[in-house]
Amino acid sequence: MTTVTRPSGRAVDALRTIRITRDYTKHAEGSVLIECGDTKVICTASIEERVPGFLKGKGQGWMTAEYGMLPRSTHSRMDREAAKGKQSGRTQEIQRLIGRSLRAAFDLEAFGERTLQLDCDVIQADGGTRTASITGAMVAAYDAFSKLKARGAIETIPVKHFVAAISVGVYKGVPVLDLDYVEDSDCDTDMNVIMTDAGSFVEVQGTAEGAAFDRVAMNRLLDLAEGGIRDLVKLQKQALGL
Amino acid sequence: MTTVTRPSGRAVDALRTIRITRDYTKHAEGSVLIECGDTKVICTASIEERVPGFLKGKGQGWMTAEYGMLPRSTHSRMDREAAKGKQSGRTQEIQRLIGRSLRAAFDLEAFGERTLQLDCDVIQADGGTRTASITGAMVAAYDAFSKLKARGAIETIPVKHFVAAISVGVYKGVPVLDLDYVEDSDCDTDMNVIMTDAGSFVEVQGTAEGAAFDRVAMNRLLDLAEGGIRDLVKLQKQALGL
Amino acid sequence: MTTVTRPSGRAVDALRTIRITRDYTKHAEGSVLIECGDTKVICTASIEERVPGFLKGKGQGWMTAEYGMLPRSTHSRMDREAAKGKQSGRTQEIQRLIGRSLRAAFDLEAFGERTLQLDCDVIQADGGTRTASITGAMVAAYDAFSKLKARGAIETIPVKHFVAAISVGVYKGVPVLDLDYVEDSDCDTDMNVIMTDAGSFVEVQGTAEGAAFDRVAMNRLLDLAEGGIRDLVKLQKQALGL
Amino acid sequence: MTTVTRPSGRAVDALRTIRITRDYTKHAEGSVLIECGDTKVICTASIEERVPGFLKGKGQGWMTAEYGMLPRSTHSRMDREAAKGKQSGRTQEIQRLIGRSLRAAFDLEAFGERTLQLDCDVIQADGGTRTASITGAMVAAYDAFSKLKARGAIETIPVKHFVAAISVGVYKGVPVLDLDYVEDSDCDTDMNVIMTDAGSFVEVQGTAEGAAFDRVAMNRLLDLAEGGIRDLVKLQKQALGL
Amino acid sequence: MTTVTRPSGRAVDALRTIRITRDYTKHAEGSVLIECGDTKVICTASIEERVPGFLKGKGQGWMTAEYGMLPRSTHSRMDREAAKGKQSGRTQEIQRLIGRSLRAAFDLEAFGERTLQLDCDVIQADGGTRTASITGAMVAAYDAFSKLKARGAIETIPVKHFVAAISVGVYKGVPVLDLDYVEDSDCDTDMNVIMTDAGSFVEVQGTAEGAAFDRVAMNRLLDLAEGGIRDLVKLQKQALGL
Amino acid sequence: MTTVTRPSGRAVDALRTIRITRDYTKHAEGSVLIECGDTKVICTASIEERVPGFLKGKGQGWMTAEYGMLPRSTHSRMDREAAKGKQSGRTQEIQRLIGRSLRAAFDLEAFGERTLQLDCDVIQADGGTRTASITGAMVAAYDAFSKLKARGAIETIPVKHFVAAISVGVYKGVPVLDLDYVEDSDCDTDMNVIMTDAGSFVEVQGTAEGAAFDRVAMNRLLDLAEGGIRDLVKLQKQALGL
Repeated sequence: MTTVTRPSGRAVDALRTIRITRDYTKHAEGSVLIECGDTKVICTASIEERVPGFLKGKGQGWMTAEYGMLPRSTHSRMDREAAKGKQSGRTQEIQRLIGRSLRAAFDLEAFGERTLQLDCDVIQADGGTRTASITGAMVAAYDAFSKLKARGAIETIPVKHFVAAISVGVYKGVPVLDLDYVEDSDCDTDMNVIMTDAGSFVEVQGTAEGAAFDRVAMNRLLDLAEGGIRDLVKLQKQALGL
Repeated sequence: MTTVTRPSGRAVDALRTIRITRDYTKHAEGSVLIECGDTKVICTASIEERVPGFLKGKGQGWMTAEYGMLPRSTHSRMDREAAKGKQSGRTQEIQRLIGRSLRAAFDLEAFGERTLQLDCDVIQADGGTRTASITGAMVAAYDAFSKLKARGAIETIPVKHFVAAISVGVYKGVPVLDLDYVEDSDCDTDMNVIMTDAGSFVEVQGTAEGAAFDRVAMNRLLDLAEGGIRDLVKLQKQALGL
Repeated sequence: MTTVTRPSGRAVDALRTIRITRDYTKHAEGSVLIECGDTKVICTASIEERVPGFLKGKGQGWMTAEYGMLPRSTHSRMDREAAKGKQSGRTQEIQRLIGRSLRAAFDLEAFGERTLQLDCDVIQADGGTRTASITGAMVAAYDAFSKLKARGAIETIPVKHFVAAISVGVYKGVPVLDLDYVEDSDCDTDMNVIMTDAGSFVEVQGTAEGAAFDRVAMNRLLDLAEGGIRDLVKLQKQALGL
Repeated sequence: MTTVTRPSGRAVDALRTIRITRDYTKHAEGSVLIECGDTKVICTASIEERVPGFLKGKGQGWMTAEYGMLPRSTHSRMDREAAKGKQSGRTQEIQRLIGRSLRAAFDLEAFGERTLQLDCDVIQADGGTRTASITGAMVAAYDAFSKLKARGAIETIPVKHFVAAISVGVYKGVPVLDLDYVEDSDCDTDMNVIMTDAGSFVEVQGTAEGAAFDRVAMNRLLDLAEGGIRDLVKLQKQALGL
Repeated sequence: MTTVTRPSGRAVDALRTIRITRDYTKHAEGSVLIECGDTKVICTASIEERVPGFLKGKGQGWMTAEYGMLPRSTHSRMDREAAKGKQSGRTQEIQRLIGRSLRAAFDLEAFGERTLQLDCDVIQADGGTRTASITGAMVAAYDAFSKLKARGAIETIPVKHFVAAISVGVYKGVPVLDLDYVEDSDCDTDMNVIMTDAGSFVEVQGTAEGAAFDRVAMNRLLDLAEGGIRDLVKLQKQALGL
Repeated sequence: MTTVTRPSGRAVDALRTIRITRDYTKHAEGSVLIECGDTKVICTASIEERVPGFLKGKGQGWMTAEYGMLPRSTHSRMDREAAKGKQSGRTQEIQRLIGRSLRAAFDLEAFGERTLQLDCDVIQADGGTRTASITGAMVAAYDAFSKLKARGAIETIPVKHFVAAISVGVYKGVPVLDLDYVEDSDCDTDMNVIMTDAGSFVEVQGTAEGAAFDRVAMNRLLDLAEGGIRDLVKLQKQALGL
C-alpha cells in the first residue's frame, strides 16, 4: 500500500477523533452533538404526530431531514440561506441524502402515522459535515424512538440496522479515510459512503474532482470506508449504551 | 413593592444565571456562546473588507446583524426559514433591533470601510433570545475589533460605550426582571430595554399583550431594567478581562 | 422646560393639523383618510367571514393589518414592494405594530368568527405614517363594526377603549411632539407611543438614532405623548360623532 | 343603431363623468388623480436620472409603468400583491400595456438618459382602471416633462401626440362605450382601445368573454372608441391648459 | 393593394408551411407538434380529474394553459424561467391568452369536473410562437377529448367551434400575413388575431410598435387574418381526419 | 451469472436502442436529440462570450448545465417548475451532476474566457433521463467546440476524453444494465455511473432504495456499467463521424 503524509498527520486509514454527546439541547426528542475532529454538528430528531399528504391513511410513518450551516461555521462567512430566500442546490442534495440514509435504517411501517424530522445544523465546519450529520442523526433518531417507546406509543424501537457515513478520497494519489477540510480542498476524488452495521451499502457517491479514478482506486476506497464505518457504528452503540 | 412567586423562584429583580463563553467556534473573528438560564445563543462577529453600496467611498464602516433559531431550539419544532424561503416578520424585527443596538455601541467612523457582520443563532430558547443576542453580540464584536487591532488595522477598539439588553414585564400584576419562557407566556406586558453602561437608553420596546399598563408600572419596569443592565455590563467586561 | 425653534414653527407640544375623513372610498366597511399635516393615509377596514387556521372553531374573531406606501408617496421614488416580490423588514414591523395596537382596542371574543382586516396605505408621506395609520385605523375599525351592528350581526360595538398613536422625539436636544419628516431626519431619538383613552400604554417603541437618552428625557417624552394622545382621541370621537 | 338600457342610464356612446386633478400629491414631478365615474386612480410620473442597462450610453430615455390596486379598492378585498410576494399576470399585463402606450406618446430620444417612471395606483375600482390609468398617466407625464423643461433640462416637451384609452364592449348584444363594473361583469366582449389625438391606433385588445363577435360589431366598437378618445383628449388638454 | 418584397419571399397573404403531427409524445392524452415554418411548438393536453377551487361542486370543467420556451429555442440563449424563479410578464400574458382562446372553443359545462391542462413548449422559435401554440393546442385538446369519449367518460366531444390564431402586421408600410422573426423585428404594427371557424373574433391584440396605424390598415389586417384563419382551420380538421 | 426476465425482454447487459440526432434545432451551436428507448432529451450547447464572476480575468472558460422536464414528459403531468417559482431538489441535483461530468471531459483552460452552457430538456421520459442527458450533452458540446474551431476562435477542440453515463441497478435480485421506467420503479438499487472512454470513473452515485446491497453486487454493477459506457462512447463517436 502506497502512503502519503497527511496534513493531519493521521494514518491513511485513521478516523479523526469522534465525540458523540446525547441530550445536547433540551426540547428535542433526540438531540446529539457530534464532533468529528473540528467538524461539529447538532443533530435533533423531532417526532410529529402527522405524515405528509402522500402517506395519509396508509398507517405508516415517515422520516425526512433538513440541513443547514451557521453562516460563520465556515472559514469565510457564507450568506444565510434564510436571508437569501432559498436553499442552495448543495444544501438540498445533502438533506435529501440524509433523509434517504436514515429511512434505510428504520422500519417506516412500525411507528404509526408519525414523522421523524431530523435537523442537522453545522456549528463548525472542517470537512465531512454531511457524513457527520448522518452518523449523528442515527443516534438522535434512536433516542427519539426510545422516548416514543418509553411513553408507550410503540413497543420496540423500529431499527432495521445502524447506518453510519464516512468520506474517503484520493489525496495526492493515495486513497485515504475521513478527509478534513484541508485534505478535501486538495484531493482528486471525494467519495461519501453510507453503510449498515452489516457491511452493506446504502449510498455511494463518488466524484472525481480532478483526475478520473480507476477501478483499483475504487476498490481501495471502498475497503477504507468499510473499516471506518465499522468503527463509527461501534461509537454510536457505545454512546447509546447498547 | 408588591411581590409575586415566580415560576423560576427568582426574586422580582433577579437575573437568571448568565454565562459568557468566548472563542466558542474557531473561524469567526469574534465567537461567543451566551447562556441566560436555558436560553443559549451563539453570537459571531465577522469582519468583511467591504461596505454596503450606500456607504462606498465615505471612509466609514458598518455593522449589521442577522438572527436565526435552529428549528428545534423551541418546545415544538418551528419551520426552517431557509426551507420556507423567507424570514418571518419577527426575525426581521429582531435582527434590525440587534443591528441598531450594536451600531449605537461603536464608532462607525473609526474602523475604515469594513463591515462587522453579527450572526446570532439560537441553539436553545427559553425566553429572552433577542436580549441575550444583543448582550452576547457586544462581546463578540469587541473581540472582533480586538483582532483587527492586533493585526494593526486599527489603533484602538472603536467602542463608544458598552450596551446590554434585558427584558422586563408585568407578571401577575407585578413588574419583574428577565422573563423566562413560562413567565413570558403568561405576562401582560413585555418590554425589552437596551441601555449603555452609562445608564442611557438605546432602545425601549414595550408591548401590552394583555391589559394596557400605566405610568407607575412603566417607571418600575425601567428601574428594574436599569439594575439588570448594570449587572450584565459587569459580566460582559469580566468575560473580556476588562 | 427648554425650548427650540422647530422647522414647522410649532410649539414643542403642538400636534400638526389633523383631519379625519370617513367613507373616503365606497367598497370597504370602514374607510378613512387621515391627514396629519402633509402625511396622508387611507385606512380601510374589511370584514371577512372567516378566521385564521389557529382560531378555527374557537368562537372568537381576529384583527390584523397590512401597510404599504405608494411608490411616489415619498420624496424620492421607492421601489414598489409588489414588484420586488417582498415586503421590507420596516413594512412588516409597522404592520405588526398596527395589528397589535388595534387588537388591544377591541374585544376579540365579542364579534364571532370574523376577521377585521385593516389596510393602511400611505398616499403621501411627511413623517409619522405608522402613528397616523393606527389613529386612522381605529376610526375605520369602529365604522366597520358599526356596519356589522347595523346589519344585526353583533349587538354592541366590541370596543374596549380607543387607541391612538403619536411620535415624540428629541430634536436638537429638546423633547418635542409629533415629528414631521424634516424634524425626524434630524433628531436624536424617535419614540412612537400608543395609548388608550384611559391614559395607559399599549406600546412604546423608542430608538436613540443618535445619542442615547437619559431617564429625564424619557419622562418628558412620555408626558408629551400623553398630551398628544388625549387630543387625538378627542378628534377620533368627534369624527365618529360620539 | 340598436339600443339597450344600460344600468348606468347612459347612452350607448356616452362616457362617464371624467375628472382630472393635477398636483394631487406633492412629491412627484407629475401627479394626477383621474376619476372616471367611480373609478379613481392616482397616476404619478417620476423622473430618474438613469436608464435601464440595455440603454446605457445610447443617449436616449425610457418610460416604464407600474400598476397596483389598493387591497380594498374592489368590492371584496383582494390579497395585497406585496404580501403575496408576486404581481399577478393581470397586473403585469396591465403595466406593460400602460408602458407601451405612453412610450408611443413621447419621443424617447428627446429627453436625454432619463427614465420617466409612471405609477398608476387604483384607489377605487369600478371598471376601466387600465384605460383610466393610461389617460391619467398621459397628463402626469406631460406635467413631469414640463418640470424638466422649467428647470432647463430639456428645451421642448418631447410629446409626439396625445394618447388616451377607453373600453368598449358588447352589452346585451349592443356595442357600448366606457363600461363600468356592472356592465363589464355582464358583457360578451370587452375591448380596450388606445388611440392618438390624430385618430390612429396605438393598441387594440379585444376579448370575447362570452360569444365571439363578428366584423360588424368590431367596426361599431371601433367607431365608439374613436368618439370616446376624441373627448378624452379634449379633457386632457383642458386639464393642462393647452 | 400595395405590395412589398418580404424577406421570406412569400406573398403578402401567404402563410408559412404548416405541419401538424399528432401523438408526438406518448404520455399525454393529446400531444401535437406544430411547425409553422421554422417555429416548432409541442402542445400537450392533459386531463386531470379535478377542478380549481372556485369551480368545486359546480359540475363544470375548466381549461387552462401554460407556455414556455426552451432556453435555446431562440437566437441567443434566454435565461431559463425555472432557474430565475419566475415567469416573465410576457410568458404570463401568452399563457393567459392561450387559455382564454381555448376556453372559447369548448363547452366547459359538457365534460364534468375535469381540467384540461394545455402545455405549449417552444422547441424552436422563428416568430409567431403564441399563435402557433393556440392553433396546435386546439388539435391536442380535441384529441384529449376524443380519448375521454373513447373511454366512455363523455358522450360527445364538447367542441363549440374550432379556433385558430395568426399574426398579421404592417411590414414596410404594407399589411402582411403571418410574420416570421425577421419580419416581426422590423415591423411597425403586430396584431394577433384569434378567430373561430365561423369567422367570428375571439381575441384581437394589436400593438403599434413603431408608428400608430389608421383605420384603413386595421381593416386590411383583419381581412388578411380572416383568410389565414380559414386555411389554418382547414389544416386542423385535415390533421384530425374530420 | 444469475438471470431474470426483464419487462423489456432485454438481456441483463443490454442497452436500449440509442439514437443520436445532431443539429436537431437550428439556433444552438450544438443541438442533439438523444433517444434511449422511449426516453428523449434535447441537449443544446450554447457558447457565451463571458465567464461567471469567480473566473473573470483568469483566462479560462467554464461549463455549466441546466436540466428540465416538459410538464407532460412524464406519465402523470408534473407541475411546471417555472410556474412554481423554483427548481426541485432533484432538478438541481441532476443539473449539478451534468455540469460536473462535462467539465471532466474538456480542458477548461483551453477555450478562453467563454462559457459553454448546456441545456438538457426532457421531451419524453422513460427512465434514465439524467444519464441520457450527459451522454447527449457530450455530443452537443463537441459540436459547439467544432463551431468555435471552425470560426477560428480556438485551434483544437479542447476534449480531454469522452464521457458517457448509464444507469445500472439490482432488479429482482439481479444486477442489470440501463433501467427503463418500469424496471426503475421496481428495483432495489439504482446506480448512475459516469465514465471516460479510458474506463475511469468520473462519478458514481448508487442508492439502495430497498435492501442495502453488498460488495459482490457492487462489483457486478460496476462491470455492467463499464460495458455499457464502452458502447455508448462508440455511438457518440459514430454520430460525430470520428
